[in-house]
Amino acid sequence: MIIVTGHVRIAPDQVEGLRPAARRTLETTRKEKGCILYAYGEDVIDPGLIRIVERWEDWPSLEAHGKAPHMDDWRAALSEVDVLEREVIAHEAGKERAL
Amino acid sequence: MIIVTGHVRIAPDQVEGLRPAARRTLETTRKEKGCILYAYGEDVIDPGLIRIVERWEDWPSLEAHGKAPHMDDWRAALSEVDVLEREVIAHEAGKERAL
Repeated sequence: MIIVTGHVRIAPDQVEGLRPAARRTLETTRKEKGCILYAYGEDVIDPGLIRIVERWEDWPSLEAHGKAPHMDDWRAALSEVDVLEREVIAHEAGKERAL
Repeated sequence: MIIVTGHVRIAPDQVEGLRPAARRTLETTRKEKGCILYAYGEDVIDPGLIRIVERWEDWPSLEAHGKAPHMDDWRAALSEVDVLEREVIAHEAGKERAL
């Protein structure tokens, strides 16, 4: 499994306008092959900071996601807001523990 | 590195009341030894669904976090709301790719 974690920071007053595009991205991505979890969450104490958490079956699934046409739509939506920070990292998942 | 991902679902109308305790938990945890990233984000399309993303240096750091006294305060705060779902999983991080 591949785990993706990270964040994108936008201006807090731009979150609401981005929500419809985020919804389309989330709902479409969750139907992609190999997608186990795909979510965006607005930081509970830092408005505008969008936390990213994803789980994918394998690298090819994640790579296909990056090339999916609907992700171009998401990138276009992001290009219309001010992305102030971005850090997204994928890791292969090793030994697991439920907490 | 250890990556923690998951969620806790509470009633949407209980998120606001939990925010002060969440802030204390986040701010205190981020000062813990071995904590690289510790965040809660409210799902952008599913109110009340709190996404969890953490990065820790190693298992002992994460274990110490679980036993930290301030986490008892957080568990006490959670016990005062209705936790409708909970899934939190830790994984050892393997091969990494920036996205």
